[in-house]
Amino acid sequence: MAERIGFIGLGIMGQGMVGNLLGAGFEVTLWNRTREKLEPFLARGAHAAEDPASVAGSAQMVFLCVSDTPDVEEVVLGPGGVAQGARAGTLVVDMSTISPEVTRKLAAHLAERGGHWLDAPVSGGSEGAARGTLSIMVGGDAAQLERALPALQAMGKTITHVGPVGAGQTVKLVNQILVVGNMLAASEAVLFAAASGLDLEKTLEAVAGGAAGSWMLSNRWPQVIRDDWRPGFMIDLQQKDLRLALDAADEMGVPLLGTGLIFQLYRTLQQAGLGREGNHALVKALERLAGMEARQR
Amino acid sequence: MAERIGFIGLGIMGQGMVGNLLGAGFEVTLWNRTREKLEPFLARGAHAAEDPASVAGSAQMVFLCVSDTPDVEEVVLGPGGVAQGARAGTLVVDMSTISPEVTRKLAAHLAERGGHWLDAPVSGGSEGAARGTLSIMVGGDAAQLERALPALQAMGKTITHVGPVGAGQTVKLVNQILVVGNMLAASEAVLFAAASGLDLEKTLEAVAGGAAGSWMLSNRWPQVIRDDWRPGFMIDLQQKDLRLALDAADEMGVPLLGTGLIFQLYRTLQQAGLGREGNHALVKALERLAGMEARQR
Amino acid sequence: MAERIGFIGLGIMGQGMVGNLLGAGFEVTLWNRTREKLEPFLARGAHAAEDPASVAGSAQMVFLCVSDTPDVEEVVLGPGGVAQGARAGTLVVDMSTISPEVTRKLAAHLAERGGHWLDAPVSGGSEGAARGTLSIMVGGDAAQLERALPALQAMGKTITHVGPVGAGQTVKLVNQILVVGNMLAASEAVLFAAASGLDLEKTLEAVAGGAAGSWMLSNRWPQVIRDDWRPGFMIDLQQKDLRLALDAADEMGVPLLGTGLIFQLYRTLQQAGLGREGNHALVKALERLAGMEARQR
Amino acid sequence: MAERIGFIGLGIMGQGMVGNLLGAGFEVTLWNRTREKLEPFLARGAHAAEDPASVAGSAQMVFLCVSDTPDVEEVVLGPGGVAQGARAGTLVVDMSTISPEVTRKLAAHLAERGGHWLDAPVSGGSEGAARGTLSIMVGGDAAQLERALPALQAMGKTITHVGPVGAGQTVKLVNQILVVGNMLAASEAVLFAAASGLDLEKTLEAVAGGAAGSWMLSNRWPQVIRDDWRPGFMIDLQQKDLRLALDAADEMGVPLLGTGLIFQLYRTLQQAGLGREGNHALVKALERLAGMEARQR
Repeated sequence: MAERIGFIGLGIMGQGMVGNLLGAGFEVTLWNRTREKLEPFLARGAHAAEDPASVAGSAQMVFLCVSDTPDVEEVVLGPGGVAQGARAGTLVVDMSTISPEVTRKLAAHLAERGGHWLDAPVSGGSEGAARGTLSIMVGGDAAQLERALPALQAMGKTITHVGPVGAGQTVKLVNQILVVGNMLAASEAVLFAAASGLDLEKTLEAVAGGAAGSWMLSNRWPQVIRDDWRPGFMIDLQQKDLRLALDAADEMGVPLLGTGLIFQLYRTLQQAGLGREGNHALVKALERLAGMEARQR
Repeated sequence: MAERIGFIGLGIMGQGMVGNLLGAGFEVTLWNRTREKLEPFLARGAHAAEDPASVAGSAQMVFLCVSDTPDVEEVVLGPGGVAQGARAGTLVVDMSTISPEVTRKLAAHLAERGGHWLDAPVSGGSEGAARGTLSIMVGGDAAQLERALPALQAMGKTITHVGPVGAGQTVKLVNQILVVGNMLAASEAVLFAAASGLDLEKTLEAVAGGAAGSWMLSNRWPQVIRDDWRPGFMIDLQQKDLRLALDAADEMGVPLLGTGLIFQLYRTLQQAGLGREGNHALVKALERLAGMEARQR
Repeated sequence: MAERIGFIGLGIMGQGMVGNLLGAGFEVTLWNRTREKLEPFLARGAHAAEDPASVAGSAQMVFLCVSDTPDVEEVVLGPGGVAQGARAGTLVVDMSTISPEVTRKLAAHLAERGGHWLDAPVSGGSEGAARGTLSIMVGGDAAQLERALPALQAMGKTITHVGPVGAGQTVKLVNQILVVGNMLAASEAVLFAAASGLDLEKTLEAVAGGAAGSWMLSNRWPQVIRDDWRPGFMIDLQQKDLRLALDAADEMGVPLLGTGLIFQLYRTLQQAGLGREGNHALVKALERLAGMEARQR
Repeated sequence: MAERIGFIGLGIMGQGMVGNLLGAGFEVTLWNRTREKLEPFLARGAHAAEDPASVAGSAQMVFLCVSDTPDVEEVVLGPGGVAQGARAGTLVVDMSTISPEVTRKLAAHLAERGGHWLDAPVSGGSEGAARGTLSIMVGGDAAQLERALPALQAMGKTITHVGPVGAGQTVKLVNQILVVGNMLAASEAVLFAAASGLDLEKTLEAVAGGAAGSWMLSNRWPQVIRDDWRPGFMIDLQQKDLRLALDAADEMGVPLLGTGLIFQLYRTLQQAGLGREGNHALVKALERLAGMEARQR
């Protein structure tokens, strides 16, 4: 029989994940900062706990999906936190995207009480969370991953064990460096194409299948053409992740010349109130500089 | 019956293309600056002409595949050039990557004598030329494309009509902006991953299938890991194309912040004698700056 | 008679400042993390206190000159900190370079007890501190500045009241943005000149007096030529200040495209073990990229 | 007695220079593309020639001050050009800013006929030309410089012999790299200061005299504050010079990361119709990106 599990964090991502866990037959104990988000899941048979400590008291495996590094620290080490309810054998699976360094500290803290940690950040967006098709990058012990695998398989399609604790978070940062770099390329290309008077759909058709191709190009260029800025992934969240990547790069002296530039461009967009638009709105920074737009007219 | 065709330029790309034209049964008249490269094709039934004008004299449809803008100008407008042999109805199909602006001038020049022009630059590399799987981006009249289509289909797999004369060249520049932008993203990502101590193959596996994916990532990251710098596309040629893109962007006031940076990084590599390595050696510029290497050890 | 004053922080800057205060006849009570640095000043008549709180107990005006934001926080709010010894009328004059935002918080905290705050960061380096020729940028109330002026005049030559609390720190960050920007310009120029085979001294002579002139050019280009990397201002400290500037710019959405690039270049030099060289070693980052050196040979 | 001299090019710079030559008592023969600009100088005793060749026929020393590389080529090598009138001993002193490489070619061409070349580009703007206070950077033989010195001293205040033919032009490019780099620093600083709510005049006062100081800061920041965009040096001309610098850097593989970025920012301003504003309008590119202005309000 499946291990009883806990889940902390019912944001847009967490809601999809918990839905899939319940759909796969798991018995789930929930906690969320605001209580009302629990209701639909309680109606589907989930249990509610008083605080994160109680989640850990009722389930040996606790999944986290919260916003940022300080949130994970609070939920684990704060008053009524997971650490207070943890016992020998407790496994925390953190699906948030947070600092690899803090991840290693939290894991070490938990290990002192006999607990275990997997960092398991995801990519694939709210749509992937809802459909259970997330990509999950896992850092930690192989034996613990084995234990978490049935639940992870209910939430994601591709689950890759990438190394020890912290490695999952670092791979996620690699993922984000690629995401925004490919986005800058697509942004420069679409603005150049528009300024040149090209038919943007035909241009996309001509280049997407070859050496110029990327997921970003195929999925976001059409949105740019249609003036559709709904987020696959919001700029505000993108910036949080880029800051983690740039901080880690700083520590190591790795020059991320492109990523550093992109971070600044996104910052101007946040300042302009576009932080909740999709990360493909990067093109708007170039458009403002150029005084022209890359839309089909 | 297929129209008799001419072909000018037997570099590494042209050799593959002519091989496929002969294989498809076309009767081809050839010219190349150095005569010896013609021999294997004459042995397969191709004809040799004295000069480009004679090619145009013997064939109403002339394909060009030479190195750079001045080469096309020379071959078309120079003494003994295509323009001298051209008649009403002559169609030049230029498969080189050259300036869109010069393309329009050459087309206008030819039009004065009743000739036609298609710009049809390709992507897919020497491998694609050899296999007949090139992507071909065509600018010019639809009726002329119709006429050239059988020959183009012998050389390429995806043939996209992207607009009037010059549009093919401009789309090729869009393609190159994407290619190098995705490459910078992959370069920053691989260096960050290596400095973080990640397993580079597992990292690739974890991210390539999602939102971070690109052709460059899937095809060049493995080469970087293996210390394999053989060119899919040489830095020297990449730089020629980037200069065309940056010049065109200058004319239009389009800020290609990333592409401009990349151009400078490649320049330092050319200076270091790496101009004939593949464009994925971009990572070496970041490595020199960082004083570290992104290789699996 | 001069107000009795306290001074906290006897690093290279603080030592020069305290020397000048003693030389001007001030009665000074000192505290420093490591006791031995006090000795030469005690021999010259200074007093030693047990902790920062005791400094504030014995002097109504307390100068701080420590390394970074957390150091000021610790010395003021930590156990045995200045705030514990402060009374109504206590004035803290912080000559460190720290976060403007934290500065405002500390000032507000002190105001609750009837105390006052001036932020008074300096430029001019250890030489300026020793000679009493620092430039001091002061934020805070004019009346408090009036009170501190005699002591500040013992330490600096140019004292400018630039606005309310925090403004001094912000102006210092403006200063640092200019410093490194002018340095990047000088670095690119000297490398370009060297690669062109110019005589670097004559070149400097020809351009320094006109529109291209800057303090950095006149003072650091000669050091570069002579292969002299002794710090006027160390890269490690420069980076601390740039991080404050970039963080503040992030908050405001101000794009510091050049400064952000420079920060990354310096990071690679820190990683290479050059953090204690002068900030003119920026040129070494470009040299590594270019594979050439900008030295007179 | 002073050698009889010729002068070609009566733009805004040339007019000031010729005025000073006449004021110093030189006998001057003039040519300009448009005849009407000669009139005021003919009224002051200057002579007019039919074409550049005639200028060289009537004077052994010919000064040039025209716009760009092709203009100098035309005036020297074109029909009726200086080369046609040149004899053994003819000295051409080119005060335009043009390509160092073309400079060397023209000098070699002239040398074949026994002529000499000095490249003597200037800085100091139209004001310096009018007042005779230009800085002049001279490349070429010392003996020829000796010969030209009396005339140069009528036009400039600082005359520096920087090396062989071409070196004057290269030093001018070094000058321009510094000019725009210092300008970017000032632009980022003023925008940061304005966004921080600082008093911009007080800020300038506090930082201009120290390590952050530059000619650009002292002279252009006040213009930015006052919303005064009159050119000391026009963006359109700045861009012409930057292109020369970037092309030369490309040849040598010198990475001008900052200069390359600045070139792109200016391009967007030219596209916005601001090409005839002063080069301090660089700040407007950052302002557009940031969606804010750095003006005193």
